[in-house]
Amino acid sequence: MTESPGIDLSRFRFVLVETAHPGNLGAAARAMKNMGLRHLVLLRPHRHPDPEALWRATNAEDLLASATVVNTLEAAIGDCVLVLGTSARARRLPWPIIQGHKLGHWMAQDALPAEGTVAILFGREASGLNNEELQACHAHIMIDTSPEYSSLNLAMAVQIVCYELRIGSLRQTDAQPDMAEGVLALPEYWDTPAASHNDIEHLLAHIQQILLQMQYYDPDNPRQLLTRLRRLVQRVRLDHLEVGMLRGFLKEVQRHFR
Amino acid sequence: MTESPGIDLSRFRFVLVETAHPGNLGAAARAMKNMGLRHLVLLRPHRHPDPEALWRATNAEDLLASATVVNTLEAAIGDCVLVLGTSARARRLPWPIIQGHKLGHWMAQDALPAEGTVAILFGREASGLNNEELQACHAHIMIDTSPEYSSLNLAMAVQIVCYELRIGSLRQTDAQPDMAEGVLALPEYWDTPAASHNDIEHLLAHIQQILLQMQYYDPDNPRQLLTRLRRLVQRVRLDHLEVGMLRGFLKEVQRHFR
Repeated sequence: MTESPGIDLSRFRFVLVETAHPGNLGAAARAMKNMGLRHLVLLRPHRHPDPEALWRATNAEDLLASATVVNTLEAAIGDCVLVLGTSARARRLPWPIIQGHKLGHWMAQDALPAEGTVAILFGREASGLNNEELQACHAHIMIDTSPEYSSLNLAMAVQIVCYELRIGSLRQTDAQPDMAEGVLALPEYWDTPAASHNDIEHLLAHIQQILLQMQYYDPDNPRQLLTRLRRLVQRVRLDHLEVGMLRGFLKEVQRHFR
Repeated sequence: MTESPGIDLSRFRFVLVETAHPGNLGAAARAMKNMGLRHLVLLRPHRHPDPEALWRATNAEDLLASATVVNTLEAAIGDCVLVLGTSARARRLPWPIIQGHKLGHWMAQDALPAEGTVAILFGREASGLNNEELQACHAHIMIDTSPEYSSLNLAMAVQIVCYELRIGSLRQTDAQPDMAEGVLALPEYWDTPAASHNDIEHLLAHIQQILLQMQYYDPDNPRQLLTRLRRLVQRVRLDHLEVGMLRGFLKEVQRHFR
């Protein structure tokens, strides 16, 4: 994977068109702030400001308070270098479509102009964006949904788009080389260093010693027991402390043998 | 990258723990249905059923009506082969973490056991999942959020996880090589089915019983020993035969105690 710089979330403006329910405005504001987006424009909201919006916004009241209220589409998007609209269904006249789950990558890799603001339009709860609004868009974002019930709540659509943009904003350096299938490494944030090969061998020898002491082998297949134990112990990528803990346990077990 | 078949959404169970606001239950049900998920379990919901939940569910009332209400974590996840929990912050004792935006790919490529149910736990609005619940998880899902305001609304977290799973359910022909850091699954070619949550719990109870018999606790920190054991045992994704083998080993050890 190549490195890409990640997108700058401060360049995005979310435009909510004729929102009917203030609860949705509040939930949308919270979703935006949770994901690091700030610029909210309300085009002819039905009820704003409203206490229900504030309640649902929780700690994102500042974002609601700083939202710009406008009366025309022109005022909402006139200065933007790229305009995208969310759309639930294909249109009679096909328009460029970006699949929701490719939005972040697409933005990070290709789509974002070098400077200027990007508007994303969200339509009415009941009827979405109208034709004029859809056609003002460079492309339509389509979020994949279940055919059984495809109509997303407005604030949920805002949440998903914010989330996609946030993912696109993360620095895409993590070209994680394929790990062998089913093999685990201790992740970077682990608290204890990994055990060494020798630590593991000593642990396995200790287990085998106890098996011998107990004369405990599957008489039909003695060797597979040891092999399965080895596979298990190696698969887990024990850390240093865990090996010490298991060895301590085994020693104690031996001390209690009659 | 190779093509992978996409995950089967009917295998997922969403467990909402002690949800306080019925509006969140309704919004979560809608989010699930929108993304093609169906199995909802409510662990000790504060108010259910409730008209506000129905209103927020819109056309997903059926999903609310068919939700199972349970009183114990055991009843919610006992039969599951993989348990994931959503978590907002890193814990003192690190646990395997799967980044939210890698969840779909991870599931599609590696992590999903060949059969059985996968539970995803969502915590309380105010305080999330408690330690017992978090430690019952094989891994924690962390959704990237803005440091400025990181607390996601419960239904929004459900929406994002559903969305990720839906993306994972789409046929994955596109080359995204990312795998989850440090999280292990039994690969497809494995010879034995994965152990269930109950299998693991019985194994851990058996180990604890032996520790008590031996009176073997670190006097300075008795609980971390058990927690570290639990983390280890869950991390390795034991298969059915391995659990049997370990239980057999432990029984034999007990038989040899003086």
